[in-house]
Amino acid sequence: MPKPIIKVGVNGYGVIGKRVADAITLQNDMKLIGISDIASDWRIKMAQRKNYNIYSSMKEKVEVMRKAGIEVQGSLEDLLEKVDVIVDCTPKKIGMKNKSIYEKFNVKAVFQGGEKHEVAGTSFVAQCNYEEALGRQFVRVVSCNTTALCRVLGAIDSNLGIKKARAFIVRRAVDVWESGRTGIMNTVVPTMGISHHAPDVKTVLHHLDIQSVAVKAAHNLFHLHFALLTFKNTVNCEDIIESLEKAPRIVFVNSEDGVDGLHAIFEIGRDLGRSRGDIYEIPVWRDSITVLKDEAYLAWSTPNESNVIPENIDAIRAITELETDWRKSVEKTDKTLGVVKKFY
Amino acid sequence: MPKPIIKVGVNGYGVIGKRVADAITLQNDMKLIGISDIASDWRIKMAQRKNYNIYSSMKEKVEVMRKAGIEVQGSLEDLLEKVDVIVDCTPKKIGMKNKSIYEKFNVKAVFQGGEKHEVAGTSFVAQCNYEEALGRQFVRVVSCNTTALCRVLGAIDSNLGIKKARAFIVRRAVDVWESGRTGIMNTVVPTMGISHHAPDVKTVLHHLDIQSVAVKAAHNLFHLHFALLTFKNTVNCEDIIESLEKAPRIVFVNSEDGVDGLHAIFEIGRDLGRSRGDIYEIPVWRDSITVLKDEAYLAWSTPNESNVIPENIDAIRAITELETDWRKSVEKTDKTLGVVKKFY
Amino acid sequence: MPKPIIKVGVNGYGVIGKRVADAITLQNDMKLIGISDIASDWRIKMAQRKNYNIYSSMKEKVEVMRKAGIEVQGSLEDLLEKVDVIVDCTPKKIGMKNKSIYEKFNVKAVFQGGEKHEVAGTSFVAQCNYEEALGRQFVRVVSCNTTALCRVLGAIDSNLGIKKARAFIVRRAVDVWESGRTGIMNTVVPTMGISHHAPDVKTVLHHLDIQSVAVKAAHNLFHLHFALLTFKNTVNCEDIIESLEKAPRIVFVNSEDGVDGLHAIFEIGRDLGRSRGDIYEIPVWRDSITVLKDEAYLAWSTPNESNVIPENIDAIRAITELETDWRKSVEKTDKTLGVVKKFY
Amino acid sequence: MPKPIIKVGVNGYGVIGKRVADAITLQNDMKLIGISDIASDWRIKMAQRKNYNIYSSMKEKVEVMRKAGIEVQGSLEDLLEKVDVIVDCTPKKIGMKNKSIYEKFNVKAVFQGGEKHEVAGTSFVAQCNYEEALGRQFVRVVSCNTTALCRVLGAIDSNLGIKKARAFIVRRAVDVWESGRTGIMNTVVPTMGISHHAPDVKTVLHHLDIQSVAVKAAHNLFHLHFALLTFKNTVNCEDIIESLEKAPRIVFVNSEDGVDGLHAIFEIGRDLGRSRGDIYEIPVWRDSITVLKDEAYLAWSTPNESNVIPENIDAIRAITELETDWRKSVEKTDKTLGVVKKFY
Repeated sequence: MPKPIIKVGVNGYGVIGKRVADAITLQNDMKLIGISDIASDWRIKMAQRKNYNIYSSMKEKVEVMRKAGIEVQGSLEDLLEKVDVIVDCTPKKIGMKNKSIYEKFNVKAVFQGGEKHEVAGTSFVAQCNYEEALGRQFVRVVSCNTTALCRVLGAIDSNLGIKKARAFIVRRAVDVWESGRTGIMNTVVPTMGISHHAPDVKTVLHHLDIQSVAVKAAHNLFHLHFALLTFKNTVNCEDIIESLEKAPRIVFVNSEDGVDGLHAIFEIGRDLGRSRGDIYEIPVWRDSITVLKDEAYLAWSTPNESNVIPENIDAIRAITELETDWRKSVEKTDKTLGVVKKFY
Repeated sequence: MPKPIIKVGVNGYGVIGKRVADAITLQNDMKLIGISDIASDWRIKMAQRKNYNIYSSMKEKVEVMRKAGIEVQGSLEDLLEKVDVIVDCTPKKIGMKNKSIYEKFNVKAVFQGGEKHEVAGTSFVAQCNYEEALGRQFVRVVSCNTTALCRVLGAIDSNLGIKKARAFIVRRAVDVWESGRTGIMNTVVPTMGISHHAPDVKTVLHHLDIQSVAVKAAHNLFHLHFALLTFKNTVNCEDIIESLEKAPRIVFVNSEDGVDGLHAIFEIGRDLGRSRGDIYEIPVWRDSITVLKDEAYLAWSTPNESNVIPENIDAIRAITELETDWRKSVEKTDKTLGVVKKFY
Repeated sequence: MPKPIIKVGVNGYGVIGKRVADAITLQNDMKLIGISDIASDWRIKMAQRKNYNIYSSMKEKVEVMRKAGIEVQGSLEDLLEKVDVIVDCTPKKIGMKNKSIYEKFNVKAVFQGGEKHEVAGTSFVAQCNYEEALGRQFVRVVSCNTTALCRVLGAIDSNLGIKKARAFIVRRAVDVWESGRTGIMNTVVPTMGISHHAPDVKTVLHHLDIQSVAVKAAHNLFHLHFALLTFKNTVNCEDIIESLEKAPRIVFVNSEDGVDGLHAIFEIGRDLGRSRGDIYEIPVWRDSITVLKDEAYLAWSTPNESNVIPENIDAIRAITELETDWRKSVEKTDKTLGVVKKFY
Repeated sequence: MPKPIIKVGVNGYGVIGKRVADAITLQNDMKLIGISDIASDWRIKMAQRKNYNIYSSMKEKVEVMRKAGIEVQGSLEDLLEKVDVIVDCTPKKIGMKNKSIYEKFNVKAVFQGGEKHEVAGTSFVAQCNYEEALGRQFVRVVSCNTTALCRVLGAIDSNLGIKKARAFIVRRAVDVWESGRTGIMNTVVPTMGISHHAPDVKTVLHHLDIQSVAVKAAHNLFHLHFALLTFKNTVNCEDIIESLEKAPRIVFVNSEDGVDGLHAIFEIGRDLGRSRGDIYEIPVWRDSITVLKDEAYLAWSTPNESNVIPENIDAIRAITELETDWRKSVEKTDKTLGVVKKFY
């Protein structure tokens, strides 16, 4: 008997939500029933342009949205009645507030990394711990930063045994759409002490010894990560390269090829021809990989808007048990999104 | 008898060249024979990824490029032997140097706005002066800034009769790909006196009384233009809106819809789902249009990387007389590129 | 009989307030009694470092400030009891709210350009309309942008008779101190239609025909202005240069000398050795001055943090009638602040 | 017998050179004889404004400079004949070329961190290794980054015994004066592998186990450093604070006081009232200091334009043996420059 098509809704049509919605429409085992939001400006009108069914996340906004010319199908509750899974892409901390209504409507839910681990009890990076999410009602796809750290360090750790990982994170300050009012200018803003990223990695890679520090820098696209690793055994550059070569959703770039910074990654993304120029992979600078005695250094770019999109699709498959083998889900998702192991 | 497919080459695979190449592949009346460049870094490798035939613009670079792993089909001369039209997208002033070789190979050529008007004797904006280019050997597609000024002011002038146009231009400082070494930081750099844009507009709109001033600002995507217009007769806002409504390749956005600056235009471009998030239209802020007695003010965004792409396609059609009616060429081009009159 | 020393307080110790306070301490005909604010962070602690008497602008903040280690002398009311003049440098629209308390304590007050003209009924630029403020209880020093427009256009108008002035304003997005949270990034944000600057100029230059448009650009220091002028009679470059040569608080810079943008102005300010590297003058690009038939174009930089500081000192003298001749007040102020007619 | 006044010249009047020149004029045991450069634009004209004697670093530039209105006293050779010490502040790698001429004229020379250690054989941070430079002909003041690392890590190491230091460096992209043409925009540019900073630290702190990684971020003022330290013995936060408290040229700031990023440090610098708003100290975020088991984390700002200025003065004293006790030299220099142990 063929598996049923999973009906999915997306609550929160922002940077992540709109990409998740588009990605769902590319899958043959799930169907986008509708999206829900509270905005009534150009952002939500772009959803209308795509003929997505639009719902209002707050009942009192239904009329406001309609007055702004949005064709609203109903409230979030109406959407929840029609779906098997809701992907919650609302702003930080709103997901936790939404949890009870998802429970009430008995829908499965995928939360994002802006929520705490506790919102779902299971945090998720497909290639690291897909199995943990199988059949769960709730799962949390970790943030872009955590996802990148898990993919790269997870791949190295499972092959070479990391003793300690220390990460240095240079964050983009704000998202593009909000760059007209909340950015930082000609400055760097550090997080005091250690950052929350390392503990968050442990919600997925439970036993990794990791710490992290972070700054916000004066740009609005992509994070940049440096990792300093020590190992349980002697390793060399080739070992690290090989570990990353065989892991999915990680690609190599080279500064020697002229890929000298985040701007070049962004241009590559656009040249790839994908929707929005999105990059789902973690581009690791191959020529940044350096081994000094028992330490290794490497640097990568974290495409903050899009690297978690494939994880959301996989998370839907995991909690609905559409697919129980992580490799098969990842392969399927990657094929639909055009994820590659080589940019050029 | 069906018209033959026009064979086209692109010399210079940079910001404009790569987009022109892609646009040519979308046309059913022309065929991309190959692209030519001198780079051997990631940029040209992205062309290889698309299976474009790659030529070397300098004979001495053939081997360098091959050593870098590029499959080079031959030199520019080899490419010129195979094409009817070459689109020269080389850096400023190189086009003029290339002209004699195009003459030698007796190919028609489309130059870009980095060259002077004299390179071709005919400067071109499809909706303004398509006819001037019909059957010519050489034509020059004007710069992104000039193209935007011609589209918007041309549309208003032909409907309402502009007496004087004064333009204020806020330029992006550098292109994205070179943002790692040649940008400006936390400053504004003015052009002394009046800028070259106004005289350049007159190469297309020959009789417009126009002057312009310009600054470079600290961003790397999109120019922003303000125009101050006086008219031969009394006009009102609706007249201006109507003039722009009926012109192709101009769309309205509203700050009231949250489209508050260039960043929002950029996000819209990505949401449209086009290659590279490109915007071919000139987004005019509808709520910027203001009429005070005999003066009108309006503001628009000039998508510097992509607004000239449709013009290049039309220019090929004009000089080869593939199409003699500008409206038909524009319509055909716009359909293939997905150009719209309404974003949302 | 010698004139008494005027006792002055400063309410609001921000970008403008701290500079006004320092400037007052340099005058021999006035005395800084104290400053007042509601902040208790590093900014106010820098005032304590200077041994300024600190008051709390809100009674309920007295204890909060003391807990933060600030030695608070009392409330704003306590300060008002001790002063002849209060310079209100509070954020936009707070000045209007403060007006009644200044009336209650019967102190004269100088407001800033963030308030509307109506707060005082008299708007002020020393070299334009000093006399209007003589003996008034309230006066409003106009904003940095308006001050710059008044100085430059006023100087030209009074000499050459401007018919129409059209201004194009490229604003810095936010102040340095707040650049860690409210900036704009990689964008330009236009004001829809015409901007408020032109009408504000008319509160000082009552009969000037002026309009303005404005954008915010992605930098945090200095505005840049372009003006397009038409004249009642024929003028040439030298006429304009001469008008600006003889006006106070305007200096020439040249792009040919390498002063290519706002960053160079900023570096000059620092090299001048003044407090905070402040520039009180309006640096006009001499080689930007261009005359085309009946039109003239010129560009200048507007040092947004500091160009109104001398005006505040003059405004105190005007309303207290410490000095009735504007030239004498300007000369005195300029000497204490080191204002020059030539940077290099 | 009183010590003679040391006669000093400064070759290269850029970001560092102009500050060194000014600092020399504040000392009572040395005298600025003149400055030398090859520029003839506004930058050198600002030196003329200060009545510094100006020499030409290249004979062929003497006439060019004179034509630009600079009063040139002669060539570099003429200056070298008159001085005991030359401070070489020329661009990277030029210092090495200049060495032979300094040898020919038998003058002592202070080089900057743009040169390799080998230029002098002795690299210098006053509070770390003053003694090494005593009586030497040549000494090299290390770069701003290396100076900051040496001051902070040296202070901690000498008190607590650092086992390993790992540094993360976020660099400003370019200097302010050149921000109109060579910046980076909306990107982060990483150094591949490990950076040169760590080995450079070892030219001063010879036995420190240190490694570093570095990025350039999209701002033009101040670097930001994070250090991750492990220790030979158990330490706590207070130990680190105490080590830094008692070292010169290090001050604490707190994010809790609102000092949230580099922009706030810059504003503090200006509020201090020093020339150019310069900061000679290393501002360490006190609330960034975190100890986790055997590891400590801390962050500081490195004022790239000015933190090496006091070192240059001390270096002059060391090589001329004007002062043999490092504490006395540092104390003297710091008094003249207004260096503090507490900003607010």
